[in-house]
Amino acid sequence: MNTHELIQTLREPATTKIVLLVADGLGGLPVEKGGKTELETANTPNFDALVKDGVCGLSTPVLPGITPGSGPGHLSLFGYDPLEYRIGRGILEALGINFAVGPKDVCIRGNFCTLGADGKITDRRAGRPSNEKNAAAVARLRTIQIPGVELFVEPVREHRFVLVIRGDGLGDAVNDTDPQQVGVAPLKAEGADPASAKTAAVVNEFIAKAVEVLAPEAPTNGATLRGFARMPNIATFEQVYGLKAAAIAVYPMYKGLARLVGMDILDPGQTLQGQVDTLKSVWDKYDFFFLHYKYTDSTGEDGNFPAKVEMIEKLDKVVPQIRALNPDVFIVTGDHSTPSRMKSHSWHPVPTVLAADATCRPDDVATFGERDCLRGGLGQFQGAHLMLLAMAHAGRLGKYGA
Amino acid sequence: MNTHELIQTLREPATTKIVLLVADGLGGLPVEKGGKTELETANTPNFDALVKDGVCGLSTPVLPGITPGSGPGHLSLFGYDPLEYRIGRGILEALGINFAVGPKDVCIRGNFCTLGADGKITDRRAGRPSNEKNAAAVARLRTIQIPGVELFVEPVREHRFVLVIRGDGLGDAVNDTDPQQVGVAPLKAEGADPASAKTAAVVNEFIAKAVEVLAPEAPTNGATLRGFARMPNIATFEQVYGLKAAAIAVYPMYKGLARLVGMDILDPGQTLQGQVDTLKSVWDKYDFFFLHYKYTDSTGEDGNFPAKVEMIEKLDKVVPQIRALNPDVFIVTGDHSTPSRMKSHSWHPVPTVLAADATCRPDDVATFGERDCLRGGLGQFQGAHLMLLAMAHAGRLGKYGA
Repeated sequence: MNTHELIQTLREPATTKIVLLVADGLGGLPVEKGGKTELETANTPNFDALVKDGVCGLSTPVLPGITPGSGPGHLSLFGYDPLEYRIGRGILEALGINFAVGPKDVCIRGNFCTLGADGKITDRRAGRPSNEKNAAAVARLRTIQIPGVELFVEPVREHRFVLVIRGDGLGDAVNDTDPQQVGVAPLKAEGADPASAKTAAVVNEFIAKAVEVLAPEAPTNGATLRGFARMPNIATFEQVYGLKAAAIAVYPMYKGLARLVGMDILDPGQTLQGQVDTLKSVWDKYDFFFLHYKYTDSTGEDGNFPAKVEMIEKLDKVVPQIRALNPDVFIVTGDHSTPSRMKSHSWHPVPTVLAADATCRPDDVATFGERDCLRGGLGQFQGAHLMLLAMAHAGRLGKYGA
Repeated sequence: MNTHELIQTLREPATTKIVLLVADGLGGLPVEKGGKTELETANTPNFDALVKDGVCGLSTPVLPGITPGSGPGHLSLFGYDPLEYRIGRGILEALGINFAVGPKDVCIRGNFCTLGADGKITDRRAGRPSNEKNAAAVARLRTIQIPGVELFVEPVREHRFVLVIRGDGLGDAVNDTDPQQVGVAPLKAEGADPASAKTAAVVNEFIAKAVEVLAPEAPTNGATLRGFARMPNIATFEQVYGLKAAAIAVYPMYKGLARLVGMDILDPGQTLQGQVDTLKSVWDKYDFFFLHYKYTDSTGEDGNFPAKVEMIEKLDKVVPQIRALNPDVFIVTGDHSTPSRMKSHSWHPVPTVLAADATCRPDDVATFGERDCLRGGLGQFQGAHLMLLAMAHAGRLGKYGA
């Protein structure tokens, strides 16, 4: 019996509410030997209060040493084994812009690029065009027609767009056409199987026509494609947990990840306070709330230690508003670590606190930090098991076996 | 290679002895914020001495967040993955009363109930009849005959009995007939496949006749059946570990669980001292001794914190008698937690100490409690791995690979 079947067997109806606050890339590293991490440096009285009431630990999203992308990191938090459920980048991009992906669709992430007269790439991001410029280029791509398939081209932002190819018998085992360097031409698409070869043929025709129609838009005069992906067959959050779930995220990628598991996607605007206000306004309508906070990751990616500290402190300040709603289970964690020292995602386990009213066994942890969590009662745990704990502490799981 | 195959490959002959003392439902929670658990509250000088000599940790019987029943909890302690080996309630009940279950048997837990004139249940436990009344009702059920099968009806205690149907081609995918509420009639049995439909037909006939023969025993005038189960195909303890094992338990359920894995079931009477005396008397005859102590669980289920503390202290007092036998490996643990605060089994990890003469790497733990075990050398571990450690510390496992 796998974990989802186990949950489906054991789950019990309840009216309890669970909040999962994901501080993207939360875990960090000290910049200097003997120093503190970003989280340890931050002044977080509200997280610390949560830690005193709850139980802490460190989450390993995939496996020790494995650095997760946003997709696997979130699937793990949602309780889907990221080694079993593999989600292509194209799907994430499409879901993130609210595109209604269907079963005949192959979704692809597109990047506008600049091509020289010789057809070689001179700028992989076409000088990061404005969103208006992006829209103009997308409008030209939308004039392209290819017999036998429907094409959808959708703007994302700057140099990014989404291409969806809809048709019968299309595979997604197609290589990226982005060569990941300048001075060379985009790669030809090739399919690893007959269905994917059909997709590749469409793609190569699309790209050839794109170069024609985009010529007037130079330097936005070319396009590369990557992350070919069809919709995976995945049980929804409600099917697995019996939880009516809302996603309150600002960035498209995280909306897309939440939509993938069937959460309702709410529109909180662009601010953290907007997210909290949205949470309050829908509190009675859902059982589970996924709040995503991006800036702990983006500051980490920028290598900006003090900015990451500041973003953690900013997040800490909204915690009392969330606790005032009296969630039965309140979890704060991240989808992976993003140490500003490394300017990238990393494999380091992620500090996690779970607070529930009466069912947390006390540990001796009193502040929220990596070293603190190491001594916490949750120990070091597999990220995909966090939802089991959430369900248990929410009184939503019955006993296994007599 | 699965774990059992691994053990069978690596195990080596030895004369060492292992004692597994299971304090049922050992783990707990504080009643008040900032308070201590039952085990932390108890005065346990002998457990503490064991802890100083041994290594501690916290066991997760199934998965984080999963609350085990007694069956899965014990299978895990015996080293059988409780998600792989699933044991029906009927089997446990039958084994627990020393019924010699065979390959053609379907075992079923029966409850006497009280039926009103309209055939609806007015008391699901028939007023908890005396054991004498139970025996009288069972004697009447034994008069029932159904062509093509053999029937065995055995008393358990109060309102409980066991029904075993022996015959060719009987399945066990049959619904419980206990509707779990009063004011409604018992449910009809239905089989989910042809073999189980055959069982269901027998059951419905049995129940119809039971109502006739039980009429004079009112209010013990009806019966419900649940936990239909055939004997699982399971390798014995001796086959897996090469250990000759004895179970020294008072309660039927735990005798049944031990018999399931092929342990010899001894009869220690009803007292803890009787169990210890039995242990001493058979010390030379076995390699492995499973001692089961029920009262840490039953007091927890009653929500009686001080009584659970007292039962822990009572158990602590017999530890010197066990240590005087010089077991090579002495483990004290539980099959799950039963916090008196929750009045039920729970998912919280279980405090565990393993003491062996020369092979325990010291940790800094000096007392036996949940928070102490969190700092122990065994860390938080999967329950089914405990037997691997027992075998290793007993010098019974060779090296894996050259």
